[in-house]
Amino acid sequence: MSFAPGTGEPIPVDIDRSGVDRCFGCGAANEGGLHLSFHRFEDGLVETRHHAAPHHCGLDTVVHGGIQATILDEVMGVAAQLALPDQATDLACITVEMHLRYRRPVPLADDVVARARLDRVDGNDLYVTGAIVGPDDEVLTAADSRWRQLVLD
Amino acid sequence: MSFAPGTGEPIPVDIDRSGVDRCFGCGAANEGGLHLSFHRFEDGLVETRHHAAPHHCGLDTVVHGGIQATILDEVMGVAAQLALPDQATDLACITVEMHLRYRRPVPLADDVVARARLDRVDGNDLYVTGAIVGPDDEVLTAADSRWRQLVLD
Repeated sequence: MSFAPGTGEPIPVDIDRSGVDRCFGCGAANEGGLHLSFHRFEDGLVETRHHAAPHHCGLDTVVHGGIQATILDEVMGVAAQLALPDQATDLACITVEMHLRYRRPVPLADDVVARARLDRVDGNDLYVTGAIVGPDDEVLTAADSRWRQLVLD
Repeated sequence: MSFAPGTGEPIPVDIDRSGVDRCFGCGAANEGGLHLSFHRFEDGLVETRHHAAPHHCGLDTVVHGGIQATILDEVMGVAAQLALPDQATDLACITVEMHLRYRRPVPLADDVVARARLDRVDGNDLYVTGAIVGPDDEVLTAADSRWRQLVLD
């Protein structure tokens, strides 16, 4: 089972995230956070790469499942947000549901590579799939998620 | 929707966790970890209470969904482990699958209260449900999980 990389050149994702600048996943102002940044590809795939800190382990040599969930939540959230017509706000959508399947250990020694792709939009719900991949794009952890677009008056 | 507390007196869970003493969720030797501890009740329910650090937020006032996933993974894992005939090892079972439904924000200001209960055992698979609850046992985040008992030769 694999999750293919994006096609074309990677482009840094540049959404205004000032409203979440202390977010554990992506906040620039959070000294204890993961400081995730994201690239998107021509075909819509979003990717992040992160070298996990030793204190984010489960067993000593693997990334904790909750930290994997954090990274997948973040990269899938960006894929959802980029699908919205108005990307002006960083509060555009929230996680409603996330399903994780831990297939193989994610080694702490390697960069965590996480990918996400919008599946479909149904009203205010956005469906996004994601994965943490190993060498050869093999899926280590698979994810599905549903997001709700916030309709701001 | 609610997730009821356990009945009877809470008893501290005392599993040998020396093999995971650097675990981000429960490791005593992890200075950057959550240091979760667990209680079980007479009816089998397992509970943990945790005051989240400010740097574990998503939006400024709520606990990040990935940190919620970490806490639910941990408390459900203890519920699975306590169901095994031999609880001697802290490597007894691993998360295979986790499904999270984020119903309401989990406030950073309050203690996070997470509960878990074994649903059923099917061969080497254990099914556990969990929740983060607010006042009046209202479910803020619901979880289902599947665990695989490791058969050590």
